[in-house]
Amino acid sequence: MKRIGMLTSGGDCQALNATMRGVVKGLHTMMGDVEIYGFEDGYKGLIYGKYRRMTGRDFSGILTRGGTILGTSRQPFKKMRTPDENGLDKVEAMKSTYKYLGLDCLVVLGGNGSQKSAHMLSEEGLNVVSLPKTIDNDLYGTDMTFGFQSAVDIATQAIDCIHTTAASHNRVFVVELMGHKVGWVTLHAGIAGGADIILIPEIPYNLNHVISAIQRRSEQGKGFTILAVAEGAISKEDAALSKKDYKAKLAGRKHSTVGYELASQIEAATGHEVRVTIPGHTQRGGSPVPFDRVISSRLGVTAAELIKNEDYGKMVIMKGYEIDTIPLAETAGKLKYVSPEDPIIRQAKNLGISFGD
Amino acid sequence: MKRIGMLTSGGDCQALNATMRGVVKGLHTMMGDVEIYGFEDGYKGLIYGKYRRMTGRDFSGILTRGGTILGTSRQPFKKMRTPDENGLDKVEAMKSTYKYLGLDCLVVLGGNGSQKSAHMLSEEGLNVVSLPKTIDNDLYGTDMTFGFQSAVDIATQAIDCIHTTAASHNRVFVVELMGHKVGWVTLHAGIAGGADIILIPEIPYNLNHVISAIQRRSEQGKGFTILAVAEGAISKEDAALSKKDYKAKLAGRKHSTVGYELASQIEAATGHEVRVTIPGHTQRGGSPVPFDRVISSRLGVTAAELIKNEDYGKMVIMKGYEIDTIPLAETAGKLKYVSPEDPIIRQAKNLGISFGD
Amino acid sequence: MKRIGMLTSGGDCQALNATMRGVVKGLHTMMGDVEIYGFEDGYKGLIYGKYRRMTGRDFSGILTRGGTILGTSRQPFKKMRTPDENGLDKVEAMKSTYKYLGLDCLVVLGGNGSQKSAHMLSEEGLNVVSLPKTIDNDLYGTDMTFGFQSAVDIATQAIDCIHTTAASHNRVFVVELMGHKVGWVTLHAGIAGGADIILIPEIPYNLNHVISAIQRRSEQGKGFTILAVAEGAISKEDAALSKKDYKAKLAGRKHSTVGYELASQIEAATGHEVRVTIPGHTQRGGSPVPFDRVISSRLGVTAAELIKNEDYGKMVIMKGYEIDTIPLAETAGKLKYVSPEDPIIRQAKNLGISFGD
Amino acid sequence: MKRIGMLTSGGDCQALNATMRGVVKGLHTMMGDVEIYGFEDGYKGLIYGKYRRMTGRDFSGILTRGGTILGTSRQPFKKMRTPDENGLDKVEAMKSTYKYLGLDCLVVLGGNGSQKSAHMLSEEGLNVVSLPKTIDNDLYGTDMTFGFQSAVDIATQAIDCIHTTAASHNRVFVVELMGHKVGWVTLHAGIAGGADIILIPEIPYNLNHVISAIQRRSEQGKGFTILAVAEGAISKEDAALSKKDYKAKLAGRKHSTVGYELASQIEAATGHEVRVTIPGHTQRGGSPVPFDRVISSRLGVTAAELIKNEDYGKMVIMKGYEIDTIPLAETAGKLKYVSPEDPIIRQAKNLGISFGD
Repeated sequence: MKRIGMLTSGGDCQALNATMRGVVKGLHTMMGDVEIYGFEDGYKGLIYGKYRRMTGRDFSGILTRGGTILGTSRQPFKKMRTPDENGLDKVEAMKSTYKYLGLDCLVVLGGNGSQKSAHMLSEEGLNVVSLPKTIDNDLYGTDMTFGFQSAVDIATQAIDCIHTTAASHNRVFVVELMGHKVGWVTLHAGIAGGADIILIPEIPYNLNHVISAIQRRSEQGKGFTILAVAEGAISKEDAALSKKDYKAKLAGRKHSTVGYELASQIEAATGHEVRVTIPGHTQRGGSPVPFDRVISSRLGVTAAELIKNEDYGKMVIMKGYEIDTIPLAETAGKLKYVSPEDPIIRQAKNLGISFGD
Repeated sequence: MKRIGMLTSGGDCQALNATMRGVVKGLHTMMGDVEIYGFEDGYKGLIYGKYRRMTGRDFSGILTRGGTILGTSRQPFKKMRTPDENGLDKVEAMKSTYKYLGLDCLVVLGGNGSQKSAHMLSEEGLNVVSLPKTIDNDLYGTDMTFGFQSAVDIATQAIDCIHTTAASHNRVFVVELMGHKVGWVTLHAGIAGGADIILIPEIPYNLNHVISAIQRRSEQGKGFTILAVAEGAISKEDAALSKKDYKAKLAGRKHSTVGYELASQIEAATGHEVRVTIPGHTQRGGSPVPFDRVISSRLGVTAAELIKNEDYGKMVIMKGYEIDTIPLAETAGKLKYVSPEDPIIRQAKNLGISFGD
Repeated sequence: MKRIGMLTSGGDCQALNATMRGVVKGLHTMMGDVEIYGFEDGYKGLIYGKYRRMTGRDFSGILTRGGTILGTSRQPFKKMRTPDENGLDKVEAMKSTYKYLGLDCLVVLGGNGSQKSAHMLSEEGLNVVSLPKTIDNDLYGTDMTFGFQSAVDIATQAIDCIHTTAASHNRVFVVELMGHKVGWVTLHAGIAGGADIILIPEIPYNLNHVISAIQRRSEQGKGFTILAVAEGAISKEDAALSKKDYKAKLAGRKHSTVGYELASQIEAATGHEVRVTIPGHTQRGGSPVPFDRVISSRLGVTAAELIKNEDYGKMVIMKGYEIDTIPLAETAGKLKYVSPEDPIIRQAKNLGISFGD
Repeated sequence: MKRIGMLTSGGDCQALNATMRGVVKGLHTMMGDVEIYGFEDGYKGLIYGKYRRMTGRDFSGILTRGGTILGTSRQPFKKMRTPDENGLDKVEAMKSTYKYLGLDCLVVLGGNGSQKSAHMLSEEGLNVVSLPKTIDNDLYGTDMTFGFQSAVDIATQAIDCIHTTAASHNRVFVVELMGHKVGWVTLHAGIAGGADIILIPEIPYNLNHVISAIQRRSEQGKGFTILAVAEGAISKEDAALSKKDYKAKLAGRKHSTVGYELASQIEAATGHEVRVTIPGHTQRGGSPVPFDRVISSRLGVTAAELIKNEDYGKMVIMKGYEIDTIPLAETAGKLKYVSPEDPIIRQAKNLGISFGD
């Protein structure tokens, strides 16, 4: 009988539970009895031996539930090789938990950093299968991550609500969305919500262009303007600074987020009333949309197929709407950014959307 | 044939369109042809003669649409008697527009300030019927305002989403909700969303009590705490200040909103990670919930009945789940606050919710 | 330490779990430790001694979950006094389970029939507190039952979806909604969804009037018509039959539901394409709307207050938006129908809605 | 200045308006002024010259609105060459409307039959660009059609609601979903909703296998079973009949839909209570999900790009998550069925789902 360990790592997102259910349903359907060990709070549980024996029952009824029944935590990859505050070698600790439990495979649901750790453990000789979790959709090697469409759904609902109030009051609205380094959520929610201006980290903006886009709308008699702004959106000017200088500038900034900063700049330049909305962590929460539940179930069950075939060291991915796999060695550590040359940017511009560039 | 003017005034909310549809359907069903004049952007349209002739068609298909097809603006009651920047007497201007169009009645959809203006116009001799619009549910004389349940719905969805992510990460979350002076939205959304702590303007909080409520949860092994905080929540200490001193303190505050301020105080005191979510104006937007559509339709059609009966100078209200009316003279200018003695506060406390008092 | 038994009885609905959570949170907050026994599948669990000891943990996180964690079943009141197939006296069996466990109180969440049984047990000497559960909102003595607004929400969403497709195709649509004997759900969802015709059991329809209402809309250039029809809607003709004759007629009817029957009659008479939608049991499912969660929490916690005060033999109710109580003796067995004289019917008619009467 | 005609044809679905908005926004952004003619009720408007001149304003604010602002109708391709009841040659009539208006291109939003007509018009010398509309996702040549994910969303919500009520009552539920010939909606909604049994037209079922799947769940202590059944689901036995014999059998069937038929067979064989839910046309209605709004906007704007480049005779398609085009000649008339060999079927089976085969 196979023994499988499982953990969810990094920022939480929708469909983590749906994916784990897929793995466990797959294992039970194909292999009958298996032993499942769930590690608590991500790699922390593997390091410190915090786990619980789980059965099919534990994974029943969780298809629609947000969050993760295992808990999660952020364990930065770059500190994995650094001993903890008590001098514990984390990598050895993880290997030792794995051996102690006699695991046949470790299933990791995680984003970019977590995939790097998964790859490291694979290199260290553990059998690892991983699954592409992130609302950011920024994992290299997969066309889609689970959580992304659910996050876009919530972000779009926020823009939808803002639309009616913006139109009633002739105001400018800044909707600040998740995405420190990548703009996929903001780009998709911006298009889906009919935003007029979209600002993402990968396409630094020129404040003057943003302001003239707003003024152009006013002149055309369109009473309101909606900006979908990634929390990592950055001006061309700031993007040209050294990392150190940029940090210093941020520290001196009057407003705590780019959304509030932009709002005050736009008010000053245009005289329009500007309002800010920050859906924040709601974008990670709630029930996964059906799209995510379908891909999660399929990704999860494919992880179980890999385990049955003892085909380890891989991440399960989406190629279009089909499932595929990629060796961890090929994907770990690579991010998928929005390229300014991506056809979707041209399409968005042809829809009349300004990127402030 | 009767001529009816209509305007929507103050902050927008859900079901404004549904209510106007109710008025117009009622007029057409009961009286056949009527002339409808829609004033643009609230009282502004009445003052400056910006209006459009409208037909039943204009009000068709808007039952579910958020915002207001007439536009709205805030025209503070206390400046109504002050001439505008060109010396125009606004009250006379409104009366003159009313006479010029030969209106039989003016229908006003508005909140507290707008009801005061409606009452003033009524005293000035215009035939006025008003409808209780506000997400805040703070109008005296009515048990329920349209917009409130829709705002609670969106605020609750935000808490729901936060719940799953809070539980996954063992974090403290502050959800800052609408309500500068009254806490109805925060109170209802807090109960509906299962918040652990609810802070509203009417019940000033003691920061130490808030912090110990969080720590008590930690000690009981409940990994996370959710605070539903009205944007007008205030500490006992600040509530004791003079208005002037409080304003000065606010100006010097590091953080722009009470949510961010509380978050940093809680982080400092407990060491817990705290995250802030600000749904903001999304609470005014989107499609009205069925409850609001039903009461809006009923309130609106009752306004039409009043007009048919030439029974003016009244606001249409809810008494429980029934429709009733109240003379504007009795309601205008009075707010309905959450009383700390209201049974709902005792019930919430008996559910284990802390108000930090 | 108090010992409390709890059961959910009859057709399930939203907010059963939310209500039980309210009861248990209230008991724990006010009285510290209490022993909770949950009976499985309604009165069946009480009769046959199927129960489980439960803790606060069992009721944690269920505020938003549909269904009932205890399970439910229909145990018709009128058979309560009849021995079961093995000759067991059910009433004595329930009393004996109650005594065996040393219960201080039995909390019953149920609709009309279940309230009658609750009253009977109260008369038999058990301490009983009951809560008004039903999507039908047909319990006498309370202005609102939990479940109702959630059912209306889902029924309205169905009409909303039908609206866009009906408008695109110039079709007639019949949306058959829950309500065998009472029309509250259909009435409210019909108004909220903007239905053109509403047929409910309490107002028998004249088929010719229904058809002319459809034809009138066609003539006015309104391309489509939406009928919200309660599953218990009945024609004047059928309403005049004896119960026996009506049953015979039903048995011979070509179509299985009133919706399909009406559709074929309308097609025959008007030549319009008619489509039927039957949301069915979806109206009982899903997460409760915030309105229901608030009243459920308040109703539940008030049940706990009654228990603390040893104030038994009562149902907790809503008077408007406030909580109150009523002796079981005054409410049990009485239904709250839609009266054709209720102002809401006049209001709906003044909105232009036809009841086919 | 270019002149563009546009029509929506066949069964309506979500995102028709979003797609047209994409086309028009694209035309305006890239080419400034263009003349837009909207044909009413699909090809009917083109045949009989029923159209209206439209501007950008008409397409503003419709991104989220279900249905089609142009109206639609079914004009079977195979009757296109047959003169109408007045002897009118429909194809010549369409060509003549096109010429009369001096159109540069006709944009067709439609499903399989409509694409065949689009291709025919293209062969007849008209400039045509088409867009893949259908909730069924059954168009050959594109990986995704707009409308599909929105239909899956609504169908899944129905199963979600049923889940809580099924679990509370230990019942068997049949949810009958759209799909006469293809099972994509049922398959995806079934997986997303956690259905236990999925029956689709492409995989004829064996009733005994369906019944034993239900009984196996009972034996495992899983109290309820949910079947997601396409309206075109068919038993192996019936699939073996000639078309004529099958039609005769259908005519004699006691129940009007496969869902009711199955329900009575399952009740007879297992003794379980079975309930039927038929979301019906709600699956075509309501606001499109964000996924559909994004692809619709991108598909629409790409149609505008084709027009700008005078690159006609093509359908715009999705290849994975990217936009592409395919000559109408290659796609028209070909359906994309669910293959029993498709990996998604294996994945679903490995999740424990039965297809009754």
